[in-house]
Amino acid sequence: MKKNAFYAQSGGVTSVINASAGALILEAKKHNKHIGKVYAGKNGILGALREELIDTSKESKAAIESLKNRPGGVFGSCRFKLKDLDTDRKEYERLIEVFKAHNIGYFFYNGGNDSADTAYKVSQISKQLNYPIKCIAIPKTVDNDLALTDCCPGFGSAAKYIATSTLEASLDTRSMCESSTKVFILEVMGRHAGWMAASSALARIEKEDPPHIILMPEVSFNQKVFLSTVKQCVKDNGFCVVVASEGIKNSKGKLLAESDVKDAFGHSQLGGVAPYLAGLISEKLKIKNHWAVSDYSHRSARHISSKTALLQSQD
Amino acid sequence: MKKNAFYAQSGGVTSVINASAGALILEAKKHNKHIGKVYAGKNGILGALREELIDTSKESKAAIESLKNRPGGVFGSCRFKLKDLDTDRKEYERLIEVFKAHNIGYFFYNGGNDSADTAYKVSQISKQLNYPIKCIAIPKTVDNDLALTDCCPGFGSAAKYIATSTLEASLDTRSMCESSTKVFILEVMGRHAGWMAASSALARIEKEDPPHIILMPEVSFNQKVFLSTVKQCVKDNGFCVVVASEGIKNSKGKLLAESDVKDAFGHSQLGGVAPYLAGLISEKLKIKNHWAVSDYSHRSARHISSKTALLQSQD
Repeated sequence: MKKNAFYAQSGGVTSVINASAGALILEAKKHNKHIGKVYAGKNGILGALREELIDTSKESKAAIESLKNRPGGVFGSCRFKLKDLDTDRKEYERLIEVFKAHNIGYFFYNGGNDSADTAYKVSQISKQLNYPIKCIAIPKTVDNDLALTDCCPGFGSAAKYIATSTLEASLDTRSMCESSTKVFILEVMGRHAGWMAASSALARIEKEDPPHIILMPEVSFNQKVFLSTVKQCVKDNGFCVVVASEGIKNSKGKLLAESDVKDAFGHSQLGGVAPYLAGLISEKLKIKNHWAVSDYSHRSARHISSKTALLQSQD
Repeated sequence: MKKNAFYAQSGGVTSVINASAGALILEAKKHNKHIGKVYAGKNGILGALREELIDTSKESKAAIESLKNRPGGVFGSCRFKLKDLDTDRKEYERLIEVFKAHNIGYFFYNGGNDSADTAYKVSQISKQLNYPIKCIAIPKTVDNDLALTDCCPGFGSAAKYIATSTLEASLDTRSMCESSTKVFILEVMGRHAGWMAASSALARIEKEDPPHIILMPEVSFNQKVFLSTVKQCVKDNGFCVVVASEGIKNSKGKLLAESDVKDAFGHSQLGGVAPYLAGLISEKLKIKNHWAVSDYSHRSARHISSKTALLQSQD
């Protein structure tokens, strides 16, 4: 008897996670001898635990095909981590119960390393409970740091956004530097991996071109070296462009973004690497600077030129 | 005898200021009975004062045509404001001296309201000194707040960037809101004019769609109303998207970005409206939020899809 499939999206979405969803649903249709319906979980794995399943067979082929151009996670994502089988055994058993009720034989989980681990654990419990399920993790992350992958879906569009924005803002800064802004700082995501910050290097044509400084979480931040490099760069080129990962740390392993900067309420401010570096440059070098924080802007960016394309994908 | 033309770029550049430059140079060539060479000032009006003129006739037609796709200000811009004729009379006389030396009979100044005013003053001094120059201001600003203009070159591309980014980040936030980020705040430029923040409304399809709240400098910020609106919006929609101008002020006319937030050195932090609002929401509503600051990213954005297009424009 053919089985149905369950698909869910997990963690921070990317601008192409819906492309993975659409491709999976269309491919499953081609194998209708083995796969019945594809149910999508509303808000990730929570949709299975709550038995909130979306029957994708009710959607038109055109609607499914349009998913490839739609940012965000169309079925809703979640930040919900299942612990190990002993601690969260009841949750896993609940999953199997729901999967049994809906004749699910295939479990696709679209997310990062944690989601792959969840898929692995679901496969274990399914064996233990004698209800076999084929469990497949579909990689997704802007960070590009998933085990066993070379290039993660989601990284490419973020990298393109970052490289393009770096090049554009660099040309802007270069035009202004004679009598105004001399340093521009772009903060990008990346708590543990510097791939996104590193992708800004694609904006370089010649070795001396911007970005002049790329700060990644894998390398300890050295304030003295940073400031002297900025100073020398402004002297040599007239301006300096810095791209910094949100997750850069000092030599003691403390996140810069959490170290000194306080918000209006005296709380450590998150995602504040760019304003922190800007403050350093203003204070120690007295050089006029500007800063930007991309955050969701680069994670979600497709930058399809017309709103029409996005509207169509929402039909 | 035919006269040469002088062209210069002033103030914060936009992603299309070079399109104005290219169009002017190409158009001048068509009128070669009246206009000789077009000289561009290196770094704006400073190029005239320092006699640093770029002879654009030495560039190929293809190079000039490619300017329309190139962000930044290709001849360099400046932040340098000439005061009134009495205060800065020597500077104005210097301009006329340089223009005489290079047989300049046309003065084109590409900038904002101040640049238009400079063009007007140059026309006055040229009459006083009996060296007539036709002075023309070419409008440019992302802020869209120039006198006598309906829509300023530079505003359109910034508006497109902001609307697209708002829509993309909104779809992202909507996917995450069930168990993670519920509020997203995008800070955009606009110290005195709310056009850029307002342009995010283009992302809306239905009335209840994001952006749910747009904060403009023309309207005093009311913390109580803001927080209750955010709270209600999250209750009604599951999430809330806010777009805020950098220049929003409280009821006493004080910039929010300068009011409370301090950087690592205890200095008031500029351009920090988004982290300020994020802090407010975390503190008073305990709702998870994310924020982004666009800054030069939207001012400079063409987001031409391939690096090749930008490379070509730099040939």
